[in-house]
Amino acid sequence: MQEATRMPAEKRMQALVLTAAGLELQTDRSVPSPRDGEALIAVQLAGVCATDIELTRGYKGGFRGILGHEFVGTVAAAPGAEEWVGRRVVGEINVGCGHCDLCRRGLGKHCRRRTSVGIIGRDGVFADFVTLPVTNLHVVPDTVTNEEAVFCEPLAAAFEILEQVQIDATSRVYVQGDGRLGLLSAWVLATTGCDLTVIGRHPEKLALLPQNDRCRGVISSAEVLAQLGQEPADVVVEVTGAPAGFSSALQLVRPQGTLVLKSTFAGRLHDFDISSLVVDEITLVGSRCGPFDKALAALESHAVEVRRLITACYPLNDGLQAFAHAGRKGVIKVLIAP
Amino acid sequence: MQEATRMPAEKRMQALVLTAAGLELQTDRSVPSPRDGEALIAVQLAGVCATDIELTRGYKGGFRGILGHEFVGTVAAAPGAEEWVGRRVVGEINVGCGHCDLCRRGLGKHCRRRTSVGIIGRDGVFADFVTLPVTNLHVVPDTVTNEEAVFCEPLAAAFEILEQVQIDATSRVYVQGDGRLGLLSAWVLATTGCDLTVIGRHPEKLALLPQNDRCRGVISSAEVLAQLGQEPADVVVEVTGAPAGFSSALQLVRPQGTLVLKSTFAGRLHDFDISSLVVDEITLVGSRCGPFDKALAALESHAVEVRRLITACYPLNDGLQAFAHAGRKGVIKVLIAP
Repeated sequence: MQEATRMPAEKRMQALVLTAAGLELQTDRSVPSPRDGEALIAVQLAGVCATDIELTRGYKGGFRGILGHEFVGTVAAAPGAEEWVGRRVVGEINVGCGHCDLCRRGLGKHCRRRTSVGIIGRDGVFADFVTLPVTNLHVVPDTVTNEEAVFCEPLAAAFEILEQVQIDATSRVYVQGDGRLGLLSAWVLATTGCDLTVIGRHPEKLALLPQNDRCRGVISSAEVLAQLGQEPADVVVEVTGAPAGFSSALQLVRPQGTLVLKSTFAGRLHDFDISSLVVDEITLVGSRCGPFDKALAALESHAVEVRRLITACYPLNDGLQAFAHAGRKGVIKVLIAP
Repeated sequence: MQEATRMPAEKRMQALVLTAAGLELQTDRSVPSPRDGEALIAVQLAGVCATDIELTRGYKGGFRGILGHEFVGTVAAAPGAEEWVGRRVVGEINVGCGHCDLCRRGLGKHCRRRTSVGIIGRDGVFADFVTLPVTNLHVVPDTVTNEEAVFCEPLAAAFEILEQVQIDATSRVYVQGDGRLGLLSAWVLATTGCDLTVIGRHPEKLALLPQNDRCRGVISSAEVLAQLGQEPADVVVEVTGAPAGFSSALQLVRPQGTLVLKSTFAGRLHDFDISSLVVDEITLVGSRCGPFDKALAALESHAVEVRRLITACYPLNDGLQAFAHAGRKGVIKVLIAP
């Protein structure tokens, strides 16, 4: 890790760039110039997300540029907003146009002309520096380490569930999927005191769940799913992203219950009987980015323990190895440190 | 209409019965005997619903028996609950087993072993008499006429929208569909003061909408849908029941908005990109039967004007004609009077 307030003296930097030829490490990339209202941020630590890996495989549109959207860094410059300089920050990833009907309705994160850090039309954080509007930034409390703060973006996405669905200690909740976001969702759901079952495929991942009598991990099988279906949940959170996962999740939610779709689906549903949603009065909730303030508060209070989810950390110039590692089975979170 | 407290002296009655051969009028059907906790109700007026017509066409499972589930009637007998005798009532249509996990969780209307009046395993209301548990009954206020009360069941289904989704005067709401349930839904939604647009196909039906500057009907066309899509709604209520309606409704709802599915779909979705729900954080709400008390209150206060929705009324022995009429285009509500 480099010092917090380094300035781009040479104006060149390293970055992991997705080009038409694939992902490559570029060592002579221009340091970006922050525009008015933007901060130039020295990235201190970044996380590899499933979305990054999917982008390198050609899913999700044709993004070209610096990858990465999970980060913690320090503001190196902020023209017109100098009070930000030196602050350690995390950042929301969507930047709306500020003018359209959706932005005016407070839906800037869904702006049709939005950019998203390292995903749509805006360079990402697998680099020495990144720029972001200061309005996207949140100051990291001193007691939260970089290794914790780098989880803020996916943790906020997990907290979005609680923004959208009423869950409390009386709720029975099933999480389907034990990947990165599945485990974070489980930790967030556990803060409500709900009765929580995580359905996964990897004992070593399920071992990272909260250890208390309100939370348990089970290995997915036809028998387990049939048994859970006999006691359907008030809320099911589907985090596998597989069309088959969607169908089995529907079997696990009670009538008038809620199915939260937490990951985008690589495939399409080819034979979906939507009548079942009506007859059983199921609510389907699409859920994406979430509240950074709640994620930071949970990190500060240690309500959510994220550091145990770190599998490995690579320096930026070993970024290609980091990606290879992150794509392997059983891996939870790989970090990259510029 | 017969007198309110008639008793089944001869123990035989007329009924419209769905058999393997189709719908037929039977004139020598046994009057049912109420069991303990049940009332025997003399049907005064009944309504033909789209579900009834679909059942005669072989959709929705193989129900056999007396059709019909929308009614108002008078209690003729109620063994063990004599206080109900003589009361004018409407009735909820689902009867749970009372013992299973769903019934114990207060979800009796979704009981897996439930019967539903004239739909699943229980004779319906196109007959001189019907039996129902007294716990399903609601007393009709004296100021509500039979022609109004007979709308209670579908009106309650429309009120279910307000049980499930927060809608107020600041909400922009589109209703897609101008059939029976579309119009009732519009009247119910209008009680919130929301900005309401009903997208239909029949000027003569749209003319039956509430007449005020917060509510308008528009004839569906590619241009109209494109224009509405430019100002997407907070809430879209889909009542056409067509798979194509589902797709176009999704185009009309804003990010983080809600799409209420109010009718079962005859077909299945064959190529549904469920990722769009996640990316735009759409909530899909399946919506079915609803609160009778709110429907009766709205009828009593005339917040909802239903009598203008009546197209025709037939005596029970012309019930087959009533069905033929109800199945024609442009018809809104056909009633049957035993």
